Amino acid sequence: TVNGDRLWQSLMDMAQHGATPKGGVCRLALTDIDKAGRDLFVEWCRQAGMTTRVDKVGNIFARRPGRDPKADPVVTGSHLDSQPTGGRFDGVYGVLAGLEVVRSLNDQAIETDAPIEVAVWTNEEGSRFSPAMMGSGVYGGAFTLEEILDKQDIDGKRFGDELERIGYAGEDDPTDHPMRAYFEAHIEQGPILEAAGLPVGVVTGAQGQRWHEITVTGMEAHAGPTPMAIRKDALVAAAKIIQCVNEIGHEHQPGACATVGFIQSKPNSRNVIPGEVFLTTDLRHPDDAQLTKMDAALKECCANVAEESGVTVDVVDFWYFAPTPFDEKLVTLVRHGADLHGYQTQPIVSGAGHDAVYVARRAPTAMIFTPCEDGISHNEVENAKPEDLEAGCNVLYHAMLEAAGW
Amino acid sequence: TVNGDRLWQSLMDMAQHGATPKGGVCRLALTDIDKAGRDLFVEWCRQAGMTTRVDKVGNIFARRPGRDPKADPVVTGSHLDSQPTGGRFDGVYGVLAGLEVVRSLNDQAIETDAPIEVAVWTNEEGSRFSPAMMGSGVYGGAFTLEEILDKQDIDGKRFGDELERIGYAGEDDPTDHPMRAYFEAHIEQGPILEAAGLPVGVVTGAQGQRWHEITVTGMEAHAGPTPMAIRKDALVAAAKIIQCVNEIGHEHQPGACATVGFIQSKPNSRNVIPGEVFLTTDLRHPDDAQLTKMDAALKECCANVAEESGVTVDVVDFWYFAPTPFDEKLVTLVRHGADLHGYQTQPIVSGAGHDAVYVARRAPTAMIFTPCEDGISHNEVENAKPEDLEAGCNVLYHAMLEAAGW
Ligand SMILES: NC(=O)NCCC(=O)O
Ligand SMILES: NC(=O)NCCC(=O)O
Repeated sequence: TVNGDRLWQSLMDMAQHGATPKGGVCRLALTDIDKAGRDLFVEWCRQAGMTTRVDKVGNIFARRPGRDPKADPVVTGSHLDSQPTGGRFDGVYGVLAGLEVVRSLNDQAIETDAPIEVAVWTNEEGSRFSPAMMGSGVYGGAFTLEEILDKQDIDGKRFGDELERIGYAGEDDPTDHPMRAYFEAHIEQGPILEAAGLPVGVVTGAQGQRWHEITVTGMEAHAGPTPMAIRKDALVAAAKIIQCVNEIGHEHQPGACATVGFIQSKPNSRNVIPGEVFLTTDLRHPDDAQLTKMDAALKECCANVAEESGVTVDVVDFWYFAPTPFDEKLVTLVRHGADLHGYQTQPIVSGAGHDAVYVARRAPTAMIFTPCEDGISHNEVENAKPEDLEAGCNVLYHAMLEAAGW
Repeated sequence: TVNGDRLWQSLMDMAQHGATPKGGVCRLALTDIDKAGRDLFVEWCRQAGMTTRVDKVGNIFARRPGRDPKADPVVTGSHLDSQPTGGRFDGVYGVLAGLEVVRSLNDQAIETDAPIEVAVWTNEEGSRFSPAMMGSGVYGGAFTLEEILDKQDIDGKRFGDELERIGYAGEDDPTDHPMRAYFEAHIEQGPILEAAGLPVGVVTGAQGQRWHEITVTGMEAHAGPTPMAIRKDALVAAAKIIQCVNEIGHEHQPGACATVGFIQSKPNSRNVIPGEVFLTTDLRHPDDAQLTKMDAALKECCANVAEESGVTVDVVDFWYFAPTPFDEKLVTLVRHGADLHGYQTQPIVSGAGHDAVYVARRAPTAMIFTPCEDGISHNEVENAKPEDLEAGCNVLYHAMLEAAGW
């Protein structure tokens, strides 16, 4: 078994980088704080006897050699970047659980047939640069390297420039990295495991997502002398769309989620009728047919709002991935690992996107979930129990050992 | 009569300071561009033989002496600051029409009994620092100097510090400036005069305003694994409030206006359920009783939204001024000025707040409106006809002459 205290201590040490007043973390992708987190990870890997390589999109792979130098590695990992007001576990847990697996193998002097690797994928959160899961998406062929390097944050800073700036623009081709198997441990970020009282969930796949970028264009005018009847208020129209999105979520139960997470109104001045509003939607469903219906409902709503409100509504399909089932054999390895320790589990579908979703396009993949407090994530108050994190790491340890051979 | 070409040329020259790509102006209060506009005005006044003084809130008074050195001045003016995406006429017209009056008096070598002054009031727009009409508000006793100097912009910059920085923190006590009469020329910023085909409106008063600051607090959580049923989405609740505000405007016709001009959602990340939204309302009505009803309706709406949505909604009464009638004698002088030139007019109530509203608390006050294209203001496309601006300035010229004596 792994060392749960050491895992917890490493989580707490990493949480110093970007620590927020409310006990969370702000470690946005490709900032100086992201660099500091990466540097700490690389140093820990060095101390554990691993060698690290970085690819052109900034993904880091730390390697513990296996007996068979020609074998493809068994890989685990996740991400070190966070939301603007994120928690100490989202992503970091998967990376440091991987490191703890290696440290435990070292402690126990266990050699594996295949090499073991711990991956840090670049910009999983998709907050500073959108969409999400960029590093793994380039690996998985969902995005080209070029399109990702050209992405810009809200201040116009380019992904490629920021990656260079923090010193993590590596030399390796991101698509040239065969894997025998990929596992990812992650907190659930939802309420299911906690409600069921289970320490571990066996993730069978992830739900699909559709993200949109919506621009509502009305007419800026003075909030005082402009009669209600002749206004083209872009924010009033946007408010109707926000309501629609919420209704679409409620109407496609069970399973649907629908969110407007980002909004920017212009000119954003108290006595000016807003002339332009930019907002984003995030629609999710485990069933692709339902997700397609949600997408159609959104577009119908936007067309109706445009007609009723006298504004124009431009909807861009910004991101899509279909519901993704994980590899049956690896899912079984995860279940075996849990059984071995006598952990009660249940199968669970991931509500969040994870790097595993894109890695699954190139390699057999599975995930391990552990509960988090009140199911809350993407919030500074995100919390998890050391014993659950240890349990998930034990499951990872055994699944990786079985996959790597020893 | 005044020189309309010279007035137009000065307007175009001033519009260079903060010129925007779409032909408008961005000259936010107490920025370097505001300073540049003020410096140009002060230089023009010097060339016109006037002396300028600045008070502690940054209001500038340029004086043309009268025959009677003890007489209180007849003052005109407005503001040089603009909205973030403002026009070339809003405010500037009133200032430069005043300058044109002085230039014409100089051309015609006319002496007046009372001195003539042209005022530039600080931060009328209320966009960078809220609320609006700050310089005139301190003059009129609506605000204390101290509270205004302590106001902060969205980046936490202090009004008093910014005023010092641009070199317009003067020595004079802002409340110690007696006036015989105050006139203000301004574009209407609404559609009434244009629709009526009139070059000049005789402003009888201004409608009342109530501004609120509303904070909606929900619970940040992940947009993917958080079921719709347990969400506390602050933006969905805010969208309901935006709808309410719009309905309140429509339900209190004739006369009501209701706008949400500013919104900020946190953490504003595409895959995070918004945990906190800050928004502002701007409610207006010419009838104070109706304005009170609108205020009550807003608060009822906010209470309902809080109850239905499981969020908290905090409403702060941020700003209020009652509908303000102007001085009957001065209003008559304005009408006389228009009659003298054969301009057709109609009485009109101002939909916007103006410095005149606060000056009216201390001195007899009236306003002159001129039409603007499509009634559009607080927009870069704001436009006005040179001949209408000349007409308004002619009316100002005669009203001031009559008030000052000659
Ligand atoms: N795990 C996680 O927070 N992923 C971000 C991508 C998503 O929004 O699903
Ligand atoms: N004239 C003008 O734009 N004033 C700003 C204050 C208000 O919003 O009424």
